[in-house]
Amino acid sequence: MSLIQLYDTTLRDGTQAEDVSFLVADKIRIAEKLDDLGIHYIEGGWPGSNPKDISFFKEIKKTRLKQAKVAAFGSTRRAKTTPDKDNNIRTLIQAAPDTVTIFGKTWDFHVREALRISLEENLELINDSLAYLKANVGEVIYDAEHFFDGYKANPEYALQTLKAAEAAGIDCIVLCDTNGGTLPHEIPAIMEKVRATVSTPLGMHAHNDSECAVANSLMAVACGAVHVQGTINGFGERCGNANLCSIIPALKLKLGHDCITDAQLKTLRIVSRTIYELANLIPNKHQAYVGNSAFAHKGGVHVSAIQRHAETYEHIRPELVGNVTRVLVSDLSGRSNILAKAEQFNLNLDSKDPLTQEILENIKDLENQGFQFEGAEASFELLMRRALGTLRHYFSVIGFRVIDSKRHEQEKPLSEATVQVKVGGRIEHTAAEGNGPVNALDHALRKALESFYPQLREVRLFDYKVRVLPAGKGTASITRVLIESGDKTSRWGTVGVSDNIIDASYQALVDALLYKLIKDEDRVG
Amino acid sequence: MSLIQLYDTTLRDGTQAEDVSFLVADKIRIAEKLDDLGIHYIEGGWPGSNPKDISFFKEIKKTRLKQAKVAAFGSTRRAKTTPDKDNNIRTLIQAAPDTVTIFGKTWDFHVREALRISLEENLELINDSLAYLKANVGEVIYDAEHFFDGYKANPEYALQTLKAAEAAGIDCIVLCDTNGGTLPHEIPAIMEKVRATVSTPLGMHAHNDSECAVANSLMAVACGAVHVQGTINGFGERCGNANLCSIIPALKLKLGHDCITDAQLKTLRIVSRTIYELANLIPNKHQAYVGNSAFAHKGGVHVSAIQRHAETYEHIRPELVGNVTRVLVSDLSGRSNILAKAEQFNLNLDSKDPLTQEILENIKDLENQGFQFEGAEASFELLMRRALGTLRHYFSVIGFRVIDSKRHEQEKPLSEATVQVKVGGRIEHTAAEGNGPVNALDHALRKALESFYPQLREVRLFDYKVRVLPAGKGTASITRVLIESGDKTSRWGTVGVSDNIIDASYQALVDALLYKLIKDEDRVG
Repeated sequence: MSLIQLYDTTLRDGTQAEDVSFLVADKIRIAEKLDDLGIHYIEGGWPGSNPKDISFFKEIKKTRLKQAKVAAFGSTRRAKTTPDKDNNIRTLIQAAPDTVTIFGKTWDFHVREALRISLEENLELINDSLAYLKANVGEVIYDAEHFFDGYKANPEYALQTLKAAEAAGIDCIVLCDTNGGTLPHEIPAIMEKVRATVSTPLGMHAHNDSECAVANSLMAVACGAVHVQGTINGFGERCGNANLCSIIPALKLKLGHDCITDAQLKTLRIVSRTIYELANLIPNKHQAYVGNSAFAHKGGVHVSAIQRHAETYEHIRPELVGNVTRVLVSDLSGRSNILAKAEQFNLNLDSKDPLTQEILENIKDLENQGFQFEGAEASFELLMRRALGTLRHYFSVIGFRVIDSKRHEQEKPLSEATVQVKVGGRIEHTAAEGNGPVNALDHALRKALESFYPQLREVRLFDYKVRVLPAGKGTASITRVLIESGDKTSRWGTVGVSDNIIDASYQALVDALLYKLIKDEDRVG
Repeated sequence: MSLIQLYDTTLRDGTQAEDVSFLVADKIRIAEKLDDLGIHYIEGGWPGSNPKDISFFKEIKKTRLKQAKVAAFGSTRRAKTTPDKDNNIRTLIQAAPDTVTIFGKTWDFHVREALRISLEENLELINDSLAYLKANVGEVIYDAEHFFDGYKANPEYALQTLKAAEAAGIDCIVLCDTNGGTLPHEIPAIMEKVRATVSTPLGMHAHNDSECAVANSLMAVACGAVHVQGTINGFGERCGNANLCSIIPALKLKLGHDCITDAQLKTLRIVSRTIYELANLIPNKHQAYVGNSAFAHKGGVHVSAIQRHAETYEHIRPELVGNVTRVLVSDLSGRSNILAKAEQFNLNLDSKDPLTQEILENIKDLENQGFQFEGAEASFELLMRRALGTLRHYFSVIGFRVIDSKRHEQEKPLSEATVQVKVGGRIEHTAAEGNGPVNALDHALRKALESFYPQLREVRLFDYKVRVLPAGKGTASITRVLIESGDKTSRWGTVGVSDNIIDASYQALVDALLYKLIKDEDRVG
């Protein structure tokens, strides 16, 4: 199949997202990752719009990219000047990129209302800006801004703007769905008209305002586009740009376009997560192909089928994009989920063993009380080990007391906890402060246990979530606490449920510490 | 244009999401919201798979829905039995829903590998299960599981299964892209074949594993489907189901299908957020149509254009779905928000008043600290009244102390609070117990204040949510508490933020009681 050019604009359009901002050093690191992934064009920024982007183009020259071309972005010249005198265009050339991409107006309404020039003038300005750049830079790409909206409003004029661009002898015309309002069924007829008008290679630049950016990009490829613009994780203004993490595997695994190598495709999940990391954003766990939940199975019917044949409920093999199959536990799950989990934890459990049914009943019962084991897999493992009788008795907590006091109107409350634990006949009685009662209890518990188990010093509390569950008739409402803990090597979740928030937190805290102890013992043993 | 049936499965397929779990009471509340939104079918659960779903079908009968039909989900009968003896099918009929939806196997591979029966037997089992249900329930919908994968593997057999379903005289055949692997350009040719084979009305059930679920659903409608299944916010297993929050506005605003009223469409954003709230999930700010960023503009070029003509960079008017345009670089939008809020609370505030700017700065500052006023409008009103100097001084809390103690390993912790309040020179010092420190503090505070303000006896705490916010550099993490309180006539939300959970809860509790006092005074005065 033909080669599809992948054009990444994470560093330019991606940074228009409300919550995305990169330092120049981040941008260089991302460019290297994109190059490793096999992206063909990396749009580094708009040098005419801000100084950060100018320094990116300076810095990237010191970086030895393997194959990616670096593109600089800008606009057509302003009215009433010539390209060689236009500041924006001069800055583009000064940035000395491998490729220049400029956008121009396609929609007559924008020409009149935003540029405030005549339709004819706009055609001249597209043509001479592109021709000048083509003479001064090796490769020139034209982004036809608002192409689909422009085409719907005035098809003749929209096509004229493409002809004006083509006449400049440029390398690619990119049809932009700038406002993201286009739906996929509209694309075939429009692209047919475009292909009857120009013969320059076509590209697609889609936004996700209708939640159709990936679909529109793939539809454009099915209709003859050979160049696709997008961003990693779909970062971008408003609802984001077309997500390359979904487009690349579809092109390669479903449409047979060999745009990157198999080995590069296997790094897709890592690239996605690295860029979330650099943007300081939490990865979207439900993200297609690369998300934590993308191949996670909860329903019992699905789980038993998937264990015989992965393709029954997986559209691709997760390994191909560097992801893995996961089996979740919940009240929707059947016996097969329990068995799969047991295997994951290296526990011996037989499907015929009545214990399997007992654990299942126990889970359903606990979930009816308000427990939830998704996100609390450590508590689940402890539950299974208790049922199997393979959980060592590490410690008991004899008792505790937590005091929160506020003594003046302007004072912040102080929290203090005392704890008494027993380990192998020895009793430790200690106290600690904290930000609130749970934090104080956590500190005191660990302080008491650390003298017996020094490895507990490594445990950190990463997240603490509380949910009040609606009360049943005549009973008090119930609180569910989910805690995420971690050490240098891993993270684990635990859960507690009670009508008392301190009790629920206490359960989850004790599970978190217990899990650390069995985890370390397993590693040693 | 024809009426498109909207079929919501948030309560069934939506709960297959890794992080979604609803109690029966949540499910009833969600069903009411969906009914208000104008959804035609609400799939409540799979009564044959778990007890929680059985009680939903009992409870929903006590709720007077305006127009939505309640559907129960299940599977075709097992092999080697008859429908009347099949447990699953009997439970479906016992649930007495308005509509039954069952799924059957379309993919020959699944028939052989998952069901382990002959292809012929599968056809019988589809036909007699559906015929039996049609005779016993008013309306029957058939979900053709894995239809697209099945069709690609063995088109003839896949179409035979649809014919077997049609022969049972059912009401709708739903083509399911169960694994979410289908791309939109594949749909037209397949749907053409289906329409040449059966004349039963067709529906679409899409999953988002290729990030194409919304596009595939809209493509199916463009190809003649009259029934669309999906979930609010796209909740669902793995990468989620087709997102009705994106499908509904596209159908109504872009494809001219008048599936819900204009007024109902305006509530779309609220419905989306309420369901995130009930699932205790953070809304996706980049979500199409309803997200906070969906109409947020950052780029300078866009902002100046948008202020002249919204349609330059907005594919629809945000008001139509209950959203608003936000301009991130300017506080213009902020000021008008403040004015709109003041009006909502019947407070006099002038756009030229420097106080407006002061409140705005104050809110920005508080939001930077971690405050969030969505869902805490009572705290927001108190903030405005404080700035305007129209908040009476009802009481001060001099101090408090909360003690949680657990004295034996098997004992549940007990919580006790003491509180000292001052009202008009009189001091009240009292104590109370509670389920956890916050509950005890709440009881003690109210006990102390009730002798002065007996109306506080009516206040109930409905919901208590805690979120730990990511820590800034070098600081401890911050806790945000959202409390929902209510009395006989209304409900209100308050918020507190602190690095100490007790302090944050205390702030939200005091606001909740204060709000009750001003609310009642306003009503009297």
